[in-house]
Amino acid sequence: MPTATDMQRRVEASFAKQGLMRVVEARVAEVAPGRCVIEAPFRKTLTQQHGYLHAGVLTTIADNAMGYAALTLMPPGHDVLTAELKINFLRPAQGALAIARAEVLKPGRTLTVARAEVWMRGDDGAETLCAAVQATLVSSAP
Amino acid sequence: MPTATDMQRRVEASFAKQGLMRVVEARVAEVAPGRCVIEAPFRKTLTQQHGYLHAGVLTTIADNAMGYAALTLMPPGHDVLTAELKINFLRPAQGALAIARAEVLKPGRTLTVARAEVWMRGDDGAETLCAAVQATLVSSAP
Amino acid sequence: MPTATDMQRRVEASFAKQGLMRVVEARVAEVAPGRCVIEAPFRKTLTQQHGYLHAGVLTTIADNAMGYAALTLMPPGHDVLTAELKINFLRPAQGALAIARAEVLKPGRTLTVARAEVWMRGDDGAETLCAAVQATLVSSAP
Amino acid sequence: MPTATDMQRRVEASFAKQGLMRVVEARVAEVAPGRCVIEAPFRKTLTQQHGYLHAGVLTTIADNAMGYAALTLMPPGHDVLTAELKINFLRPAQGALAIARAEVLKPGRTLTVARAEVWMRGDDGAETLCAAVQATLVSSAP
Repeated sequence: MPTATDMQRRVEASFAKQGLMRVVEARVAEVAPGRCVIEAPFRKTLTQQHGYLHAGVLTTIADNAMGYAALTLMPPGHDVLTAELKINFLRPAQGALAIARAEVLKPGRTLTVARAEVWMRGDDGAETLCAAVQATLVSSAP
Repeated sequence: MPTATDMQRRVEASFAKQGLMRVVEARVAEVAPGRCVIEAPFRKTLTQQHGYLHAGVLTTIADNAMGYAALTLMPPGHDVLTAELKINFLRPAQGALAIARAEVLKPGRTLTVARAEVWMRGDDGAETLCAAVQATLVSSAP
Repeated sequence: MPTATDMQRRVEASFAKQGLMRVVEARVAEVAPGRCVIEAPFRKTLTQQHGYLHAGVLTTIADNAMGYAALTLMPPGHDVLTAELKINFLRPAQGALAIARAEVLKPGRTLTVARAEVWMRGDDGAETLCAAVQATLVSSAP
Repeated sequence: MPTATDMQRRVEASFAKQGLMRVVEARVAEVAPGRCVIEAPFRKTLTQQHGYLHAGVLTTIADNAMGYAALTLMPPGHDVLTAELKINFLRPAQGALAIARAEVLKPGRTLTVARAEVWMRGDDGAETLCAAVQATLVSSAP
C-alpha cells in the first residue's frame, strides 16, 4: 500500500512533465485515495470569445484531476490514460480560480470510471458549478 | 443567405477574441457551410506527461471547430455555445500538426449536433486519427 | 408552485403513455423536486447474451428517471425530451431489481443537465452500482 | 482469419442469447468486418409518451450493432462488452423500421471505439437520421 507521500510524489512527478499544465498555471491542490483536486487561475490569455475561461481549460484540468484520482488506486509503475470523457458545460466560467474535483466511481484493473466537477471561485470565495464530467480511464502496466 | 466571405469573417472575428487560441497557436484552416477545420502545431509547451500533444489541446481545437461549423448555419447575430461534448482518444497525439475537422450532423434552431475528428499530420504528410468527438451546441439569439 | 401530488400525477400520467415502460415492467418509485427513482425487476426476457439485465434496459430506466427529475422543475404544460445521454456500464447487471436514481445537476429554461445511477438490488437487499449516466434534457413549451 | 460465414454465425449465436432482442423483435440485417446493421420494427408497445419509438429501443439496437461490429474484428473466443456509450437523439423516431448502422472507428486489443447511426425508414422507403452514437467497447479474452 503506497503511503500518502508516495502517492503525492507520484502525482507531482507526472504532473511536472506536462507542459500544458504550466501554460495554464495549474497546480495539484489535493491528492487522496481515489480523489484529486486541480486548480488553475483565471487568465485573460486563456479565455474564449466572451472573456470567460475557455472550455478547453476546464476540460484540461478536469481530465488531469480524473487521471490522477485513478492513478492513486493503481499499483506502482502503472500509468493511466484517458480513453474518453464527456463534459457538460453548465455555466460561464467566470471567477478568479477554476477548481476541478475528481473522484473514482469504479476502479478497475483495466478500466476506471471517474467523475469530476469544475467550480469557479470568485474573489469573495463563493463557488459556482461550471462543468460536470464523466470519463473512462485505462491503465497500462509497466 | 450569408456569403462565404461573411461567414469566414464572422468565424475569424470570434476566433480572434479567444485568448486560448493564441496560446495554442491555432488557426482556422477552412470554413464552409456546416463545416470547419482548425489546426494547431505541435509544441513541447503543450504536451502531457509522455511528450504527446495534450488531450486538452485536441479537445480545445475540436470544440472550436464544431462551434464554428455550427455557427456557419445560424442567422447573423446569433452566437453558439457548447452545451456538452464527448471525446474518445484513439491514439497518442504524435506529429507536427493537429487538425480538427468538424461537421454539423443535425442543425437546429436551438440545438445543433456536430461531430469532429482530430488528426495528427507527421512531417511526411501522413495523417493519423487521434480523437473522435460528438457534441451538442446551443445557439443564443442576439 | 405545483404540489407534490400535482408533480407525482404529472409524472405518472406521462409514464403511463410509454409502452416500453410496461414491457420492462418499470414503475415510478419516487418523485421529488429535481429527483426521480424508477425501478424495473430482473426478467429473463430482458437479458443480454450472458444472462444479465440488458444495457438497453438500464439505459431506458435511467433515461426516464432523468427526464422526470427534470420535469418536476418545469412549469406546468412544458414537456421534456432527452437531447443526449452518456452511460458508463460499471458492473454486470445481476440481481432481482434495477433501480435508477436520477437528480438534476443544473436546471434551466431550455437545457437541464441531470445525472443518474443504476443500482441492482439482490434478494438479500444489498445493492451494487452498475451504471452511471449524465444527460442533457431539453424542455419544450406548450 | 475467420470466414464471412464464421463471423455471421458468431454474431447470430450471441444475438440469439439476448432476450431483449426478441422483445424488440430485432434482427441482424448485415455483418461485415468492422460493421454491423441491426433492425427493429416500430411497435406501439415500444413507444415513449408521444407515440414515437422509445429512446431505449434506439439505444439498445445501436449498442448491439456496435458490439457486433467490434466482435467481427476480434480473435475467436473473445467476447465484447460495452464500456460506455454516448447517444444524441436528433429527431423523433417516427416510421416503420429502425435501422442501426455501426462501424468500428478504431479497433484495439483491449478497447475498440465504434460509431453508430440510427435511422427510421418510413413506409415510402425514405430514411431519417434519428440518433448518433459513439461508444467504447472492451474485449475479454476467453
